[in-house]
Amino acid sequence: VGKPVYQPDNFYGDAAPPGVVMGLAWTSLGGATLYIETSAFSTKKADFKITGSMGDVMKESTKIAQSYATQVLAKLDPDNMFMEEYGVHMHIPEGATPKDGPSAGITMVTSLLSAAFNKPVAADLAMTGEISLTGKVLPIGGVKEKALAARRSGVSNIIFPKANEKDWDELDDYVKEGLTAHFATDYEQVYALAFPDGVATWPGASSA
Amino acid sequence: VGKPVYQPDNFYGDAAPPGVVMGLAWTSLGGATLYIETSAFSTKKADFKITGSMGDVMKESTKIAQSYATQVLAKLDPDNMFMEEYGVHMHIPEGATPKDGPSAGITMVTSLLSAAFNKPVAADLAMTGEISLTGKVLPIGGVKEKALAARRSGVSNIIFPKANEKDWDELDDYVKEGLTAHFATDYEQVYALAFPDGVATWPGASSA
Amino acid sequence: VGKPVYQPDNFYGDAAPPGVVMGLAWTSLGGATLYIETSAFSTKKADFKITGSMGDVMKESTKIAQSYATQVLAKLDPDNMFMEEYGVHMHIPEGATPKDGPSAGITMVTSLLSAAFNKPVAADLAMTGEISLTGKVLPIGGVKEKALAARRSGVSNIIFPKANEKDWDELDDYVKEGLTAHFATDYEQVYALAFPDGVATWPGASSA
Repeated sequence: VGKPVYQPDNFYGDAAPPGVVMGLAWTSLGGATLYIETSAFSTKKADFKITGSMGDVMKESTKIAQSYATQVLAKLDPDNMFMEEYGVHMHIPEGATPKDGPSAGITMVTSLLSAAFNKPVAADLAMTGEISLTGKVLPIGGVKEKALAARRSGVSNIIFPKANEKDWDELDDYVKEGLTAHFATDYEQVYALAFPDGVATWPGASSA
Repeated sequence: VGKPVYQPDNFYGDAAPPGVVMGLAWTSLGGATLYIETSAFSTKKADFKITGSMGDVMKESTKIAQSYATQVLAKLDPDNMFMEEYGVHMHIPEGATPKDGPSAGITMVTSLLSAAFNKPVAADLAMTGEISLTGKVLPIGGVKEKALAARRSGVSNIIFPKANEKDWDELDDYVKEGLTAHFATDYEQVYALAFPDGVATWPGASSA
Repeated sequence: VGKPVYQPDNFYGDAAPPGVVMGLAWTSLGGATLYIETSAFSTKKADFKITGSMGDVMKESTKIAQSYATQVLAKLDPDNMFMEEYGVHMHIPEGATPKDGPSAGITMVTSLLSAAFNKPVAADLAMTGEISLTGKVLPIGGVKEKALAARRSGVSNIIFPKANEKDWDELDDYVKEGLTAHFATDYEQVYALAFPDGVATWPGASSA
């Protein structure tokens, strides 16, 4: 099978386990990919732990993701006790790099759902978008830098907030080459892209 | 059905779900609309969580809103266990924008009641006003800026504190055009506008 | 019924509900009236919450008021479970204005007792005075400014600490016009003025 070239920004390659989802960050040095990792273990006392040098806004994002994923699970898989009975830990490598901002919202929700379903997300997919408490996908910054970072990491499918579509349309063609952008107004659309095989059907999902 | 123009400030359009209420903020950059979002889920351990980069005064506002909404529920719907037995989460997008001040008080109360009743509030309505612990609606700043922001977001009904009526009266006609202002001294009046179909009748409500 | 003139500083008018008591503050801008509001609700887990942008000294005042009011209740109304079994919330509008100092002590005690008895205090009454842990009423500053503020808000009865009687006596007549000052050395005297109809009789109270 040959020895794959190690890509520091894409260390899971095409084999991210359940709970691991690629996000896109915008830093003072440009764009970067990052993974949101969630793992869980049965425990006597359920809790929710976060690590990864997150700033205050990002810490709040984990709470929003947790609340929203709890609501999604209650609808899609009511018997799933992941949020109620497990010790859940969400981490963002690399631990020494400070991270902040709300744009990992949809990535965090997807990471939690992937862990709760124990099902990996679609390969070759990165995503960025703030999540509201009800699942609205809100605009983010750094579309160009994030697009470049995704390609650098060898990823070709990116989910952006619908409100950023105009930013994408304005990018030069050389930036967009080889990339497919998907746009979401609601988390339901992210879900359909992350879990194309179903897992559980979104209640009332249209065929759009 | 055509392609709707995305309005970043009004991303729920006319279809805000239960728990979501539009407020009006006054920032150094002018007025802005914002949503207060409340969601809840049954849990083994009731709690109250807030996110959205709130400053200290706004955090206190959430406590006042919680206490007052608890009192209202006890009167209107005594069997409603929302405050006692649910995990309640109140959030204000956008997560990276610091927010502060007491003027979202009535919006927060309405968001909590809407979530507790599982009933959306009237469409095309935004509101601003400090709430006292007993339901008095106290004056706010930035009437002009907030009026402009409401119209920019396509909202035509605004609830202001009665004490701000003089500020409204002094506005130029071009600011007020297309807007209908409602004035409240007590939360009861906000309730009647937010839940026009009733839900539960306010005890001792007059027909005014 | 005519259109009443809205008084921002006296928004309860003559109809303050149980738990609401008018205090007097002394600020860098002069005197001001403020309300101490206490509400309570039955809960599984009793607690005591404070809001209103209180500074450290004022926060300590709420603790002293709580301890002293608990003692008073144990004497006057031993079966009253207000302090033991209720969620109690004390708030001072307006939320964005920082407040500090110990002079709201007797107002806080009265607010707690009014809420515990579920009985409003006498109308047309404002008060200012530090409280000791045993109910002594200690002197405050700003007698003149507070007198002016009371009259501006349309209040004619003020309770001052006995130790401030000399400050009152030295005021010009135009300041005192229309105002009646009452002086207290002990909280018992405040109690008699706030609850003239009795509620519960102060143990060993004289007929003075």
